[in-house]
Amino acid sequence: MKEIKKLLVANRGEIALRVLRSAKEMGLQTVAIYSEADRNALHVRYADEAVCVGGPQSSESYLRGDAILEVCRRLGVDAIHPGYGFLSENAEFARMVTEAGLIFVGPSPEAMNIMGDKLSAKQAVKAYDIPLVPGTDEAISDVEEAKRIAAEVGFPILIKASAGGGGKGMRIVNNSEEFEEQMQLAINEATSAFGDGSVFIEKFVTGPRHIEIQVLGDEHGNIVHLFERECSIQRRHQKVIEEAPSSVLTPELRAEMGRCAVDVARACNYTGAGTVEFLLDDQRNFYFLEMNTRLQVEHPVTEQITGLDLVKEQIRVAQGLPLPFSQEDLTITGHALELRVYAEDPQNNFLPDIGTLTTYVRPQGPGVRVDDGFEQGMDIPIYYDPMIAKLVTFGKDRTEAIERMLRAIDEYQITGIQTTLPFGSYVLRHPAFVSGDFDTNFVRDHFTPADLDAKPDETTAKLAAVLTTMLMSEKKAPAAASSDAPAATGSNWKRNRLGVR
Amino acid sequence: MKEIKKLLVANRGEIALRVLRSAKEMGLQTVAIYSEADRNALHVRYADEAVCVGGPQSSESYLRGDAILEVCRRLGVDAIHPGYGFLSENAEFARMVTEAGLIFVGPSPEAMNIMGDKLSAKQAVKAYDIPLVPGTDEAISDVEEAKRIAAEVGFPILIKASAGGGGKGMRIVNNSEEFEEQMQLAINEATSAFGDGSVFIEKFVTGPRHIEIQVLGDEHGNIVHLFERECSIQRRHQKVIEEAPSSVLTPELRAEMGRCAVDVARACNYTGAGTVEFLLDDQRNFYFLEMNTRLQVEHPVTEQITGLDLVKEQIRVAQGLPLPFSQEDLTITGHALELRVYAEDPQNNFLPDIGTLTTYVRPQGPGVRVDDGFEQGMDIPIYYDPMIAKLVTFGKDRTEAIERMLRAIDEYQITGIQTTLPFGSYVLRHPAFVSGDFDTNFVRDHFTPADLDAKPDETTAKLAAVLTTMLMSEKKAPAAASSDAPAATGSNWKRNRLGVR
Repeated sequence: MKEIKKLLVANRGEIALRVLRSAKEMGLQTVAIYSEADRNALHVRYADEAVCVGGPQSSESYLRGDAILEVCRRLGVDAIHPGYGFLSENAEFARMVTEAGLIFVGPSPEAMNIMGDKLSAKQAVKAYDIPLVPGTDEAISDVEEAKRIAAEVGFPILIKASAGGGGKGMRIVNNSEEFEEQMQLAINEATSAFGDGSVFIEKFVTGPRHIEIQVLGDEHGNIVHLFERECSIQRRHQKVIEEAPSSVLTPELRAEMGRCAVDVARACNYTGAGTVEFLLDDQRNFYFLEMNTRLQVEHPVTEQITGLDLVKEQIRVAQGLPLPFSQEDLTITGHALELRVYAEDPQNNFLPDIGTLTTYVRPQGPGVRVDDGFEQGMDIPIYYDPMIAKLVTFGKDRTEAIERMLRAIDEYQITGIQTTLPFGSYVLRHPAFVSGDFDTNFVRDHFTPADLDAKPDETTAKLAAVLTTMLMSEKKAPAAASSDAPAATGSNWKRNRLGVR
Repeated sequence: MKEIKKLLVANRGEIALRVLRSAKEMGLQTVAIYSEADRNALHVRYADEAVCVGGPQSSESYLRGDAILEVCRRLGVDAIHPGYGFLSENAEFARMVTEAGLIFVGPSPEAMNIMGDKLSAKQAVKAYDIPLVPGTDEAISDVEEAKRIAAEVGFPILIKASAGGGGKGMRIVNNSEEFEEQMQLAINEATSAFGDGSVFIEKFVTGPRHIEIQVLGDEHGNIVHLFERECSIQRRHQKVIEEAPSSVLTPELRAEMGRCAVDVARACNYTGAGTVEFLLDDQRNFYFLEMNTRLQVEHPVTEQITGLDLVKEQIRVAQGLPLPFSQEDLTITGHALELRVYAEDPQNNFLPDIGTLTTYVRPQGPGVRVDDGFEQGMDIPIYYDPMIAKLVTFGKDRTEAIERMLRAIDEYQITGIQTTLPFGSYVLRHPAFVSGDFDTNFVRDHFTPADLDAKPDETTAKLAAVLTTMLMSEKKAPAAASSDAPAATGSNWKRNRLGVR
């Protein structure tokens, strides 16, 4: 076994703190790094030792692999946990860490390289039975050939410029009659925009849901999956609400997607925690998209339904230990939701709203977990991702997890900046979300900032009525449906006492 | 169904807040009551409405059933949750509530009366096969007869004065040879102390553990048990650390004690959440002690291992709904611990240390739950129980729950008053606790205030070494065993940054 005694966390914010907590529980000594903008950050105070590695810009600090390795040498660190973002998917950094004689808590640089490139990832999984979005492997410009392929793939199909980007030269074609005309338009558009008229043809996935499978592999060839996370609620390709399990997966589909995810990991000899992303269409067909070779932001929902601590599992595997369980030992218990709370103004096009957390009181109580890196009085630095916290709730079923999330949002006290909490509350009360019948277009289809403008009383009454009907089928829900339902009209903490005797 | 729309919580502190949270999640309107000492309490701010019912003494406020019922009439409340303590086991109050046409969230007054008296409880369970501590049912003064019974019961036996109290007239007898002499001494002592020489004879339980079983019954005759809680770590008959499951119960013993607990509940037609307490001796024999006809302080550990919200189950049952599960649906997942954090000075004979919570920052992160009723800056009133919080941790097994509790204790920041956190930390690191081999005499046998005096470095090094050996058999534990292990020398938050670059 390669023993880890002292672990450096090459990250900041909530994920640095989250990794440090597990390291402490394992009895490891811990080292934090920080930028000049993070001098007062919680992860700096939490670690046994902390070293400033440079200026506020990530490129001056959190991305400086050389400076981080120098800290390791100086403090006798023997392992690095990269968190997510920053250097976590940088194969070159992972190689440098290993060559310096340290343990990189993550997969091998080779696995990162293979999965870091879509084409090499597709090549690698070819030996396995992994469904990919059907279409052309290479760019094409022959209309007749393209039409034949389109017919084979089945309509609707998507034509996209080989050199494309930003939607230019992209066409959705619903049937073969329109195909030639649309393909010609796409070629013309692509030629004039990029000077290259070649295009790809692929199946247009309707009603797409983003479903990902958590995998975990060790150095002894054991790989298991820890079930799925549903991440379809996104805004501008950024996940907003994640949950586990997904409300659309049958046990059979779960097992089949799990089997595929394990095969994808096997295809690159994956070790540690990784995530295999799939697109699921409205006919329950799934297609492999890509693999993320690191811990995901949304890993807590998997922790809540499996009872495992993924960071501890990562650290154990990195020490060469075999996984202490097999696939048959793993089961799903309950339901978990995660809401990412951003310092953004949902009424103002989600522009970052940087400032001081004048009030910051976290929700508490059963079934609530808050992963964050801030406390009251702190400034949110402008240099990094504006995520303040991950609000995680869990309960015996999806209904309870939603009810707890709404209660926790109501209990969360944040002043000084605008946050996405009201947006989260809106989504969680929306009939489409509550029913489980939604896809990655949810925000486009169901949200306009005006939805948050409405007087709480009106919106709440309408939504609560729907919510009541859908959520509470097992019990008669009382107050929530009436327009003066207090639970939805503001923070729990702000109500006045009557003060009468 | 008797629908509850508006619930009044007739309690204060953490349990009031905890009940309010579940009520909110169920969409109920909520009413808090408070004394003049609790004007700024969190439960007052959390509820939709709050009414002051009188002066700071409990007898002037929280115990005033008449004033509470008046609030219900005035605000249109239709149900009362009594929490624990105060009026929660007052059958007369429960009857008044019911007679006022309201729902009492708890068992019937009849069940409370039966179980509220040890003799009537024993009578009630006679029809079932419930083991009681063997001995005389009635007082006895005939030495020969007593000797015969003692031989039947088996030594060691306990002789106690019928009119006794305070240990007067109490004798432990180890064998039949000493019996006559000891009995005569007990009779003489009892006669001179109480003017009554009659005594009871019962089996002296050696190495006793306090194990209790959570039960849940509905109005349709369904009763299930939610497994056990181990509550043997006590100080002056006050529980300090509780856990679920117990490390000594085999599945067979668990099933048998569960069966008995359900029968005890059936014996009094129990509805709602209740707890059947047993004594377990060092030969794994168990004896029924009594039934608590309310929610227990330590109910969270059961919630964590079963995934159920006991307050919600109480409220559903009180509305006449049948239990939504049967015994076969219930399983244990993981392990949970609860540490009661008191405003008491463990270095000063645990005297209450009342004052202002100058700093109050709760631990966060995976597997940690804090149930409390305070926030930073608040005063701890002198009028009530000095419990500040219940710190609950849970993990995939007992080892992880202990590691998390130690991490959480280290993370908890409380200044302004002394707390029992250091005492909790001491117990959790003690070899006897870690091994699971302890009984209700743990504190008497293993603790002196001097244990907390020792320099953290020394104590920690010694204890951590043991802990490491015992706890971490599945992995090589690194830093914890060395005397400079930082995780144990103070709060995680107080370490200095190196500030070097």
